[in-house]
Amino acid sequence: MSKNIYLTPGPSELYFTVQDHLKTAIQEDVCSISHRSQAFMDIYQNTAARVKELLGVPEEYYLVFTNTATEVWERLIQNCAEKQTYHLVNGSFSKRFYEFSGLLGRKATKLDVPFGEGFDIDQVVVPEEAEMICVTQNETSSGAALPVDAIYQLREKYPDQLIAVDAVSSVPYLNIDYRKIDSLFFSVQKGMGLPAGLGVWIFNQRCVEKANSLEAKGLSIGTYHSIPSLLEKAVKHQTPATPNVLGIYLLGKVCEDMLRRGVEQIRQEVEHKAALTYNFFEAHPNFECFVQKKEHQSQTVLVANLVNCTFQQVSEYLKPHLLQVGSGYGKWKTSQIRIANFPTHSKETFFKLLDLLQEFKA
Amino acid sequence: MSKNIYLTPGPSELYFTVQDHLKTAIQEDVCSISHRSQAFMDIYQNTAARVKELLGVPEEYYLVFTNTATEVWERLIQNCAEKQTYHLVNGSFSKRFYEFSGLLGRKATKLDVPFGEGFDIDQVVVPEEAEMICVTQNETSSGAALPVDAIYQLREKYPDQLIAVDAVSSVPYLNIDYRKIDSLFFSVQKGMGLPAGLGVWIFNQRCVEKANSLEAKGLSIGTYHSIPSLLEKAVKHQTPATPNVLGIYLLGKVCEDMLRRGVEQIRQEVEHKAALTYNFFEAHPNFECFVQKKEHQSQTVLVANLVNCTFQQVSEYLKPHLLQVGSGYGKWKTSQIRIANFPTHSKETFFKLLDLLQEFKA
Repeated sequence: MSKNIYLTPGPSELYFTVQDHLKTAIQEDVCSISHRSQAFMDIYQNTAARVKELLGVPEEYYLVFTNTATEVWERLIQNCAEKQTYHLVNGSFSKRFYEFSGLLGRKATKLDVPFGEGFDIDQVVVPEEAEMICVTQNETSSGAALPVDAIYQLREKYPDQLIAVDAVSSVPYLNIDYRKIDSLFFSVQKGMGLPAGLGVWIFNQRCVEKANSLEAKGLSIGTYHSIPSLLEKAVKHQTPATPNVLGIYLLGKVCEDMLRRGVEQIRQEVEHKAALTYNFFEAHPNFECFVQKKEHQSQTVLVANLVNCTFQQVSEYLKPHLLQVGSGYGKWKTSQIRIANFPTHSKETFFKLLDLLQEFKA
Repeated sequence: MSKNIYLTPGPSELYFTVQDHLKTAIQEDVCSISHRSQAFMDIYQNTAARVKELLGVPEEYYLVFTNTATEVWERLIQNCAEKQTYHLVNGSFSKRFYEFSGLLGRKATKLDVPFGEGFDIDQVVVPEEAEMICVTQNETSSGAALPVDAIYQLREKYPDQLIAVDAVSSVPYLNIDYRKIDSLFFSVQKGMGLPAGLGVWIFNQRCVEKANSLEAKGLSIGTYHSIPSLLEKAVKHQTPATPNVLGIYLLGKVCEDMLRRGVEQIRQEVEHKAALTYNFFEAHPNFECFVQKKEHQSQTVLVANLVNCTFQQVSEYLKPHLLQVGSGYGKWKTSQIRIANFPTHSKETFFKLLDLLQEFKA
């Protein structure tokens, strides 16, 4: 049976080894073992170590599992900001992160730029009272990315604030110096090519101390997924509640596969496929790069305006070839195309996609 | 390859059809479809309808998906109690539910009875200020259950308070009149026999109104998993964040299988296996029913004190026969045995288990 290939920006095509790992997981009773057993602790320890190895996370940074990246927005604000957060907002997801702060009773301030644009760090003015700067490194909704150098500039300019990085759709492509940020998080159903239902949250001692200080003041920092509660179990390679054991197992296995392939190789391939696609957008009369500035163009979520055609036309054209691409987000649903460029998407798939689109006529 | 059979009280043995449904899920791209697509909405709608059908949940009750039952403790308190909750505490999980209320800044009061005991409803005195009565229908840690009639008595005695029922390890065996409670929740890795990583939260209009009233007062009721946020998406058969799509799919399929078998049949079989096991505990010199009062003995988590032997001895004895049973919880780890009696555990498995244990000598 021929299956579709999903070039959608999450959930997306599974990493090509996942199906085999699922079989092994069933054979090895991964779904039945206790989350307090040595067998589970071994899985947890392996996955945490492999994720850190793949992404280059320093030894002293903590790594815990949550349910989604969306949950981490909530937990970060609960644990690491008593009164005020600051946000760079340029799309639907960065906007939602900002809104969470208000919903949790914090004062949230922001720098807003239009959908599809990036940020000029010189224009960023973080209020002194803001305790955390929240950035969305890769805006999945618009395909605008924040270069790591811009994040490092923020660190230099605001050394006292915590810097939290939403890297939902850029991991493992994103190559960042973790020592220049305080927290980073992602979900596994995008670049990692796994079934949805698991988030990964990385943070440093400064975040722990902030959470501890809020707790010491008698403020509520949540319950089972507060930083202290997560860490109390993480040191034992366990979780506060029964986790998505299968998801944690699969993440470790896919990290092993990616490590064998080599993260540098993966990153080069992502850049190669992105370059081909952006060049195509520039050359074809029905497509037009949505993010204008090259340095703000995401390498993993490639977005184009559709000229004189609709997303439905493009989608219907590709359907017989078993290629599924993403529509624009929200009000851009019919007027844009979003193409995921994750490690599981092979060069051959991109050649096929672009060859087909080359022949597309509205 | 011979696999172990897990008679552990969660995670437990997968429902025997899960492996086939996993294969179909992969073939049908369940892990790659967008959680905003019609294909996902169809899955959501089917699963919600089948769960309600299987459990006899009235049409007008809401059903939403969370990450775990543990999460529901937090969301219930955030959404349905402004100042005070009341708890029946007789084990580790009911105690943790109670503690969550304090962690969220509420005043929590409780009736405490010793581990392994049930409750005499005549002794329950709920303070007038308590907005929600929280009961753990089946204490997974001790094997003590709260009969549904006791819950109905609570409703008659305290019609103004919300009643929230933790049914984590008793669904789908539990046969309860939902109109006599306001909320019920469970995780799928116990009686439903599914991979961990999904919770189901059922609640009525009174809970919605309570959440709305707290929000109208300007209080924080959380973010993406507040009742209004969950319902806003649920009416469209969607979720606020990318959910465990595979888990939701599998839950619907297993409900269909259980509906074909018939929930009455399943409940009768559970009772039959429980009776056999409790009779065995009473007759064998190395076992002794932990929960003394018959009406408080759980039908789904069967707990015995071990007499003149340790859990390790029993466990090692069963291991060559590929049967995995649960140890006691916490400080009862070596001195008790916990046997899960879920729908996936066949009568034949119980015959084999009890025949073997019959021959056990410490």
